[in-house]
Formats: sequence, C-alpha cells, structure tokens
Amino acid sequence: MSLTVVGSIAFDAVKTPFGERERMLGGAAVHFSLAASFFTEVRMVGPVGDDFGEGEFELLQRRGINTDDIERVQGGQTFFWRGHYDFDLNTAHTDDTQLGVFGEFEPKLSDASRQSETLFLANIQPDVQRGVREQCDGAQLVGLDSMNLWIETARDSLEQTIRGVDLVFLNDAEVRQFTEEANLVKAARQIMELGPRAVVAKQGEYGAALFTEDGFFALPAYPLETVNDPTGAGDSFAGGFLGYLASEGPDAASDDGVLRRAMAYGSTLASFCVEKFGTDRNSRLTREEIDERFDEFRRMTSLDEVPAG
Amino acid sequence: MSLTVVGSIAFDAVKTPFGERERMLGGAAVHFSLAASFFTEVRMVGPVGDDFGEGEFELLQRRGINTDDIERVQGGQTFFWRGHYDFDLNTAHTDDTQLGVFGEFEPKLSDASRQSETLFLANIQPDVQRGVREQCDGAQLVGLDSMNLWIETARDSLEQTIRGVDLVFLNDAEVRQFTEEANLVKAARQIMELGPRAVVAKQGEYGAALFTEDGFFALPAYPLETVNDPTGAGDSFAGGFLGYLASEGPDAASDDGVLRRAMAYGSTLASFCVEKFGTDRNSRLTREEIDERFDEFRRMTSLDEVPAG
Repeated sequence: MSLTVVGSIAFDAVKTPFGERERMLGGAAVHFSLAASFFTEVRMVGPVGDDFGEGEFELLQRRGINTDDIERVQGGQTFFWRGHYDFDLNTAHTDDTQLGVFGEFEPKLSDASRQSETLFLANIQPDVQRGVREQCDGAQLVGLDSMNLWIETARDSLEQTIRGVDLVFLNDAEVRQFTEEANLVKAARQIMELGPRAVVAKQGEYGAALFTEDGFFALPAYPLETVNDPTGAGDSFAGGFLGYLASEGPDAASDDGVLRRAMAYGSTLASFCVEKFGTDRNSRLTREEIDERFDEFRRMTSLDEVPAG
Repeated sequence: MSLTVVGSIAFDAVKTPFGERERMLGGAAVHFSLAASFFTEVRMVGPVGDDFGEGEFELLQRRGINTDDIERVQGGQTFFWRGHYDFDLNTAHTDDTQLGVFGEFEPKLSDASRQSETLFLANIQPDVQRGVREQCDGAQLVGLDSMNLWIETARDSLEQTIRGVDLVFLNDAEVRQFTEEANLVKAARQIMELGPRAVVAKQGEYGAALFTEDGFFALPAYPLETVNDPTGAGDSFAGGFLGYLASEGPDAASDDGVLRRAMAYGSTLASFCVEKFGTDRNSRLTREEIDERFDEFRRMTSLDEVPAG
C-alpha cells in the first residue's frame, strides 16, 4: 500500500556535544519519508522555498520518494530550525525557528496522494491535520503525531483530529499532558476511547510502548554507543513503523504480531537516524542493514532463546 | 543455594498521591528478602531497635526468611524514613531520616550467613559493604546496590567495593554519575572493566537494562494501572533477580538465558511491590501469582508468537 506523509520539510542547524552542523536537510516529513521508503512507496507533501535545491530533491528521489506534492513557493524560504542538545540527548533546546513558507502552509494534495491507503499526519497544527485527513477520504490507516505546543494552545482541535485517526504517536509526557492522567496505561486507554485503535508512547532513550485494545507491548531503544544527533528520531520511528505496516497490507494494524514487528522496525530506523547528523545515516542505509539490526534487536529483547539470524 | 542479604531494616512513613501510611515495615533488606524468599532460602542481616516487635519478625518468618542474624540493639531505635512522592512516582522526596541503630551498624555475620553461596550488599556505606564481602569469603555470587550519596561522598571506597562483586544494581542516572559517562552502554562497560560481570541499570517506570560482556538485554516495567507506593521497587527487583539466580545453581550468572529470566522475575516482583503500600503486597504474594505474571510478561515483551501459558 502506498503511504502519504504531510508535514514539515526543513533546514536544521544543530549543535550537540558531539559536533555541529550549520544547515542540513531535516523536518518531520523528511525523516519520516526516508525511514518509510525502505518498506513501501512514499509520497511526501509539504512546502519548500526557493532555497530548496536540486540536491535536496535528489536525495529524496534516490530513496524512491515521490516528491510531486512538494510545493515550491516562489520567493519563499524553507522552514528553518536551530537547536542544540546538552549531554541529556532526550531534550532539544530550540534556539531559533523561522517558519518561512511553512507558516502559510495549506496542504493541497494531488489525487494520487489523496488515494494512498496509508496516511501520516506529522506534527503540524491540528486544524491543518484534520483538513488533510478529510481530503484523504480513502485512507484506511491514518497515523498522527503532535506536540506539547498544540496540547497547550489547540487542545480541542487536537482532540477532534485524534478522533479521526487510527494510530497516535506521542511522547509519553505528551500522552500524560493531553489526558491529564499521570498513569500511562490509563492515559493511553483514554486516548483509545476517542477512537484510535493504538497509541504509541515514545520514550526517547528508553524506547517505546504500544497500547492496543488487546494489550501492551514495549521495546527498549536499541543500545548505541554513538549517538550524534537525536533530531528526527521520533519521525524515523514513525516512518519505520507505518512504512512496515503499509507493506503488510490493509489488515496489518489489527494483527498484533505485525504491530510488534512495526515497533521493532520503528526502533531500528530511529536508532540508525541518531547515529549521525540529520539525514546522513538514513539516506545511505540499506534494507540489509535494517534487517540485520532488526534480527539483532529480536535476539536482544527476547526472554526466550532466539537462534542467531 | 542460600542467599544472605545485608542492609537496612526500617520503619517507613510514606505519602503518595494515592494515600499515606504513618509507620510500616520497610528497608532495603526487608523488601529484598521478601522478594527473594519465593525462590530460595534467605538469611537477613541488619540491626533493629526495641521498637521492632514480634509482628515484624513473624511477617518475615511466615515467608521463611531466616532472622537469626537480625541484631536487636537494646535501647535502640529502628531506622526510620519519612518520604513522599508527587505524581512523578519516579522521584522520592525525603522528609526525615532517623538512622537510629543503623548509624552504628557493624555487621557481624553468623557462620551460616557467611557461608551462603550468594550475597547481596544492599545500599549501605561502601566500607561496610566491603567488610561484609570480606567476611563472606565463600560467596560465589555477590550483588551490590548503592546510591548517589556514596558516589558523591565515598567514591573511591565504592569503586574498591565494586571491584569485589559480580553484579552491580544501580539506577541508570547513578551508572552515569559514577562513571561520569553520559552514554549508558559505555558507562556500563566501564563498570564491568572494574570486575563485575554484569551491570543492571534500573530505570524506574521504564524497566531495567542488563549489560554483560556478551551483550545487552532490556525489559520494560510491567504496565500497571495502579501504583500506590514505589518504595522498595528497586530492592524487590534485586530480590527477585538474585533469588531466582540463586535457585538456579552456581553457574547461573554465566547463563544468558537465566540472567534474562532473572530480569523478568525482578521486574515481576517490583511490579507487585508498588501495587500496594510498603510490604503489603509482597508479604502476601504466592508463587503462582508470580509465575502467572512472569508468563504474561513474556508474552508482552516478545516479538515472536508466544503461546498463552
């Protein structure tokens, strides 16, 4: 099944204890698309300015990502984010945000993008997400990400948007903040009562937890000795997760085993993402490397004997 | 194999968002012993005052815990801790500490306790831990817990103590603090280079990670809708872990499968502990309940199909 993602396309300036970059390709839709591109056909929707060049398009197209719905706004500037991380790599500190063309973004999807069976609404204003959801009336599986800003400033709209999706990806702190419920199990259930069939609580270096009607599944993060830049980890996770799900066909989201493997593919793609700066690692990854780490991950997290792949 | 634990025996006053208790049995050695008692013969070593009554002894003895080496100090008062938790149940706030007889504690182990094959040095001053370690020269498997206080005030002594043990149990923040290394994988390896064959990084509500020479294993915490009192979770984890290990014989700690199951038993006992206040849950637990939750846990954390127990 093909997969459409709507979200930010950006240039990022990032400083971590391990290095810094002044300008590199980033944004939620980019990180998501790269990760998902190893599993299925991806269509990317989002605005860019004149400063978005051939090199950026080529990087995406080399991964087979369809860029037809990337809207190039004449005279505009691509969304720019500058941030840094201290030794606690779980917390991003924003130093500068220039919305540029993203500030006026009104997604207009082509017929092809509207017809994707799977849709991911990356973290943007929830009214805009809902507008996209309504355009894609044929989508059978819809995932959503959001953030504390929208919980604080547009909670009602976000709730309405969540009612129309199947999968919610949030940090565990956001799950608690949105529901005002300290217990994560209860909080996830409250979100599912709005409509979604599953909630993925992202937990940074601790991994991620999956809540469904039937149960619970959790995975630690893949243990890395080298983490250079955590930017994009959450979107790479969602991309690996939904990309794999889309590749498994229309009933994938109701198959507990598929959902669990989606969690592991999500974690795998997130782990590669953070090894290098920006898109450096995931734009050069191979499916073989992914499957190798997936198998290693399975062995690492199993209570039972798992024969070496 | 029998298991000796040396550590605090206490009365705790605890307030959480879900209730409060003015005086209940607590202390590291108590929580550890109750958890371990489901797996092996436990000998508890620690000091109490006149205020430690028959009821407390009976609670321990009902679980088959050997209390011969509990030292009753005439005219003394049992260690008392008062603390509270806010909605973030990961952080204990200490309101009062009265060391009582624990302040002058010089462990004197009986021959029987010295001859246990397995030894757990609960969180006490590292010089004292080392003294116990030296008394137990026949111990084949020695675990240790510690805390930020000793890392800050007695680091050299703690390092020397760590050199003499096999398993280190610390919160992940303490692993980082002790090594001054932000990356947990590297930090755990630095501790293993001192001598221990394994490091267990406890991660509160996120579970725990196990580092050994051969690899890595991690488990989420068992997902609970009701957490009343997190006090004793870490010691219950260590008790379930080492108790199970002791029950598996002398080579248990070099068997990766046994270590993984020990992680799951540790998590299981910790999860029961926090469901109620103090020792209320673990003192009334049955082995059947433990194994049921263990099986559920295995199903919850497996990427592969696990048939229902």
